[in-house]
Amino acid sequence: MSIRIGILGYGNLARGVESAIRQNDDLELVAVFTRRDPKTVTIKTEGVPVDSVDNVESYVGKIDVLVLAGGSATDLPEQTPKYAKLFNVIDSFDTHARIPEHFANVDASAKESKHVGIISMGWDPGMFSLLRMISTSVLPEGENYTFWGRGVSQGHSDAIRRIDGVVDARQYTVPIEAAVERVRSGENPELTTREKHLRECYVVAEEGADLARIEKEIKEMPNYFADYDTTVNFISEEELKKNHSGLPHGGFVLRSGVTGFDKEHKHIIEYKLTLDSNPEFTGSVIAAYARAAYKLANEGSFGCKTVFDIAPSYISPLSGEELRKHLL
Amino acid sequence: MSIRIGILGYGNLARGVESAIRQNDDLELVAVFTRRDPKTVTIKTEGVPVDSVDNVESYVGKIDVLVLAGGSATDLPEQTPKYAKLFNVIDSFDTHARIPEHFANVDASAKESKHVGIISMGWDPGMFSLLRMISTSVLPEGENYTFWGRGVSQGHSDAIRRIDGVVDARQYTVPIEAAVERVRSGENPELTTREKHLRECYVVAEEGADLARIEKEIKEMPNYFADYDTTVNFISEEELKKNHSGLPHGGFVLRSGVTGFDKEHKHIIEYKLTLDSNPEFTGSVIAAYARAAYKLANEGSFGCKTVFDIAPSYISPLSGEELRKHLL
Repeated sequence: MSIRIGILGYGNLARGVESAIRQNDDLELVAVFTRRDPKTVTIKTEGVPVDSVDNVESYVGKIDVLVLAGGSATDLPEQTPKYAKLFNVIDSFDTHARIPEHFANVDASAKESKHVGIISMGWDPGMFSLLRMISTSVLPEGENYTFWGRGVSQGHSDAIRRIDGVVDARQYTVPIEAAVERVRSGENPELTTREKHLRECYVVAEEGADLARIEKEIKEMPNYFADYDTTVNFISEEELKKNHSGLPHGGFVLRSGVTGFDKEHKHIIEYKLTLDSNPEFTGSVIAAYARAAYKLANEGSFGCKTVFDIAPSYISPLSGEELRKHLL
Repeated sequence: MSIRIGILGYGNLARGVESAIRQNDDLELVAVFTRRDPKTVTIKTEGVPVDSVDNVESYVGKIDVLVLAGGSATDLPEQTPKYAKLFNVIDSFDTHARIPEHFANVDASAKESKHVGIISMGWDPGMFSLLRMISTSVLPEGENYTFWGRGVSQGHSDAIRRIDGVVDARQYTVPIEAAVERVRSGENPELTTREKHLRECYVVAEEGADLARIEKEIKEMPNYFADYDTTVNFISEEELKKNHSGLPHGGFVLRSGVTGFDKEHKHIIEYKLTLDSNPEFTGSVIAAYARAAYKLANEGSFGCKTVFDIAPSYISPLSGEELRKHLL
């Protein structure tokens, strides 16, 4: 018997989850829910209905885990606690400062209704958090470093698009190799924001737009660009489509620590992701942890969980015996 | 209140655990147990007794977790099930083929006596197993690759020492960079044993020994060297002490997988360890998971566990709230 999955939303991340479900024999997509007119949404999986989000309640008993594929700004703070009343749920909430509040809301809702709610799943937060946490526990005296990229930052791309005279834009976050090498050497450097990442922008401007003004507005934008060395390249719409339509990403988590009675031995733990498709990898992580949500609920371990709270074996379709035999 | 740790054995690994305990405020070394005359064993931690292994039973109620720091060949198969009757225990059992049997023995003993027994902990098995398992669950269509080194293999060094005319030896396992790069490129190559690792030997021979014969015996030794490109360097005892007295090690676990409706996107997950001291890093992993043994026992979750069965938060001294705030 398969684990029955529903997906709320049908953007990039939802399609990543849909694709991941097809790669897992024990997972089955039951329905996609949308706030749009369902007739206007065509999904890739044949024979699976697209239904209105207004009808989601009628799927109680037909869905084991509902994946919430909306955004962290406004969708998830409302949706995850709301739907945790009806289903086991999982989201990719990534607004760091609001995680404690989001956790508390989902926990209360999920515990009351006897469901499992997994939050902040993906690769950062998610896999990177897991590696930071485990590596910090194993090497308590040391420093953590996280580098992102080379990859497309949707938030930064959107910020450029909001500038007057910009038609479209793509922003790549690029880790600075010299900084990564200093960390790998065990030097434990203190690195400024500017020393860690570059920002590379590809911008399509309106005809006749003041390019110098656009470039200045990008480079001086607080929070997004002002603290970085930023390059701005104006390109045609055709070139943007041809060379910058993908959503690659990745990054590194490094822990540099010491052991020994005189702290004389250095150790470097490095976890590195190189991803052709950010939403498909994130969707793959979510699909694996949806399996955990189902298993935890079956065991009666209700409430809100993060990647820290879930024993790794729960995300695998293999039995404990198979895991010990083939992967230990 | 601290978690009270005992260590059975006092070789390299035990000293690594002892050193790690000093880096964790919530862990306390209570006693070291030895099969030798305790008077002949001096440990680094002041004020902590060295006692005979024959007296270990008198520490019931005084020790929360007993670390079994013996060897996998003969010590642990007997010791771990035996001492799981008296204490929560943790070992680094690494004889892969015998893990199912060892797990069953420890599980039966620990469940009957209501203890927790964690087996096969360290970095391989241990951290590498965890990464293989999680990465395989996240990217179900793909290949796993494990490379070891550059580092000292104790087993291979010992095998050389058993050859007639050899005074001492150190063997380095060296991953072949070209093979690693092929994996990183997403090529998913099939690699032979010879293509993955080199073996580099530093040998101190007896005066007048037949060096050509020793070199031939090393290079043709089945299982250990015959399937590898092996280099043998004869050096003096002084040079061995000066340049090869450390126990560095490390390696990589890579998962190369695909996602997408047409499997059109490649992803590489890489976990890399660069360790100045193999036993101290292994001891650090064991210390962190000793904390988990204690917490699991307090919750009544008895029996044998591996790295797959333990929620990551159990290995941290931080609360769930602190973990979510600082590391998620």
